[in-house]
Amino acid sequence: MAELLPPGSTIGILGGGQLGRMLAMAAAKLGYHTHIFAPEANAPAAQVASAHTQAAYEDHAALEAFASTVDVVTYEFENIPLETARKLGTLVPVRPGTKALEVSQDRLAEKTFLQNLGLATAPFADVVGADGLAVGLETIGTPSILKTRRFGYDGKGQFVFTPTDPAPDLGRVLDQPCILEGFVDFSCEVSVIAARGLSGDVVAYDPGENVHEAGILSTTSLPARIPSRLATDAVLLAGKILNALDYVGVLGVELFVTPQTLVVNEIAPRVHNSGHWTEAACAVSQFEQHIRAITGLPLGDGSRHSDAIMENLIGSDVERWRDGSPGLHLYGKGEARAGRKMGHITRLTPKS
Amino acid sequence: MAELLPPGSTIGILGGGQLGRMLAMAAAKLGYHTHIFAPEANAPAAQVASAHTQAAYEDHAALEAFASTVDVVTYEFENIPLETARKLGTLVPVRPGTKALEVSQDRLAEKTFLQNLGLATAPFADVVGADGLAVGLETIGTPSILKTRRFGYDGKGQFVFTPTDPAPDLGRVLDQPCILEGFVDFSCEVSVIAARGLSGDVVAYDPGENVHEAGILSTTSLPARIPSRLATDAVLLAGKILNALDYVGVLGVELFVTPQTLVVNEIAPRVHNSGHWTEAACAVSQFEQHIRAITGLPLGDGSRHSDAIMENLIGSDVERWRDGSPGLHLYGKGEARAGRKMGHITRLTPKS
Repeated sequence: MAELLPPGSTIGILGGGQLGRMLAMAAAKLGYHTHIFAPEANAPAAQVASAHTQAAYEDHAALEAFASTVDVVTYEFENIPLETARKLGTLVPVRPGTKALEVSQDRLAEKTFLQNLGLATAPFADVVGADGLAVGLETIGTPSILKTRRFGYDGKGQFVFTPTDPAPDLGRVLDQPCILEGFVDFSCEVSVIAARGLSGDVVAYDPGENVHEAGILSTTSLPARIPSRLATDAVLLAGKILNALDYVGVLGVELFVTPQTLVVNEIAPRVHNSGHWTEAACAVSQFEQHIRAITGLPLGDGSRHSDAIMENLIGSDVERWRDGSPGLHLYGKGEARAGRKMGHITRLTPKS
Repeated sequence: MAELLPPGSTIGILGGGQLGRMLAMAAAKLGYHTHIFAPEANAPAAQVASAHTQAAYEDHAALEAFASTVDVVTYEFENIPLETARKLGTLVPVRPGTKALEVSQDRLAEKTFLQNLGLATAPFADVVGADGLAVGLETIGTPSILKTRRFGYDGKGQFVFTPTDPAPDLGRVLDQPCILEGFVDFSCEVSVIAARGLSGDVVAYDPGENVHEAGILSTTSLPARIPSRLATDAVLLAGKILNALDYVGVLGVELFVTPQTLVVNEIAPRVHNSGHWTEAACAVSQFEQHIRAITGLPLGDGSRHSDAIMENLIGSDVERWRDGSPGLHLYGKGEARAGRKMGHITRLTPKS
């Protein structure tokens, strides 16, 4: 029987962005305190948390002091240094654990992990330097996409090779380890948000259908327009990943839907932008589900009471706050820079 | 056209309990900062707010400093001193205004106000001292109930006269101004949570059916088992009260349902315990609705996507957190004293 963290305990969250903010609000709803560890001043998450340590992830003295005030640590993004998670893990439970971080921080490790689980991925090749790229392009062909192995998000650090543009300007990207991925001819992208509890139970939300614009998630719609067979497959596949990682918490799995099968695009060891709709359309949101998982509370039912469309408010889209749509959620960020995720709107309709 | 307070502005909240806490969380969801003014240390609301001024409501220097940091002030309970609201009102908008406070702080003023609006109330008599009580009992008869005119809540300061117990031990209650109320022979109690915006628009939620235990709300169920004619009457009546008070914000109206009509029991110029179900069953909760009203945002639709039963967790009931029911909401309070509201659970079922 896994330990159960009582309300009144303190949850440490690495990262101070909107995901940390929504985690902190879900934690408060369950009576937990939160302590944010994030290098930025004015972190959106710190506005709703009991405490904020503003320090670098490499500051071991600050990490030790932080650990002494919290009962469990989690993170809101996968690019925190592994060493930070490992250090904290010697002092206090870190959930999900470092295995999920290791796999998801490196696109090559992630693809290899998925392949070893028997899951379909895009064809891929390890790329080291210009010679490696040449070999990769021979194997994978075009169209294909070159990505840095680490620290990419929202389409940053990605370069597309096509038959008509076989030599895009790569800048200095090949200074870093890269991966070349073949294109997948997909009809749509869906994602599954799933959770695994301390005692190994798994709960998933219905797959949502994602539309991206300029490499950034634009909308997620429920239900996804896919056959129910594929929806079931998507959920089973997410469970397989959670179990293989001995995972505790919420995980997002992005999937390409092809006529034949589901191809795993990527996994995110955290609550996920494509799961924001759960806050409006489910009794237990992805944020609360994550808090339940890491505190040992029973996971909530993942069923929807409504259909939903979640729309991201990017940059100046945030001006739509004036419309006051139901389902408006803003992140408390100051400056509405282009490409910055400022908030979202989830519209509900009766379940179809 | 009423002014519109942009996200990033700061909302001052008088009172640091669970209602202030849920208001602060709703404000954060809309991108607002909150500043709690409350005399207690460890105020539940302060745990999720950007700032907390811990000072007495009579501390005018603290009130001035507080006012200089906020763009609007609201309150989570009706027993803040009128003088506090008036003082703040000279510095910054206070919503709802002092008129609602004046009326609801005094049971006699409240009953008189309702009567003047043409609404039904229990028969009542002003009671000053033992002689006043004797006159009141002659007029109202038994069963009847003696209440202090001010500062009563959850059944505190109330004494019941019945034919078999016509002289209960009143202690020193008659040292204070009192009111004697006749009993209303009602089949059930319902409450309406309604909101009025800055520009005078009114939105109401469906009436919920309340069950009290030992003078404290135990459950609120939706839909209430009343004819639709009465449900409509209840909503219209709430709108009448809001307009008469030139109200801005959310107001709770408790109603006795008799075979003939609806009798107003009391009004609360704030979000209300019997409206907690809206957080789980509506796109816009009563807390968010209140924030929308006082910031000038459009009010949200009050319709339910689900039926709901909200159950209060009083005192040691809070131990039910271990069950991890969906819809669990805890208030971050330390000690689970008897009679203390520690949290609630809202269970949803498909709309009937």
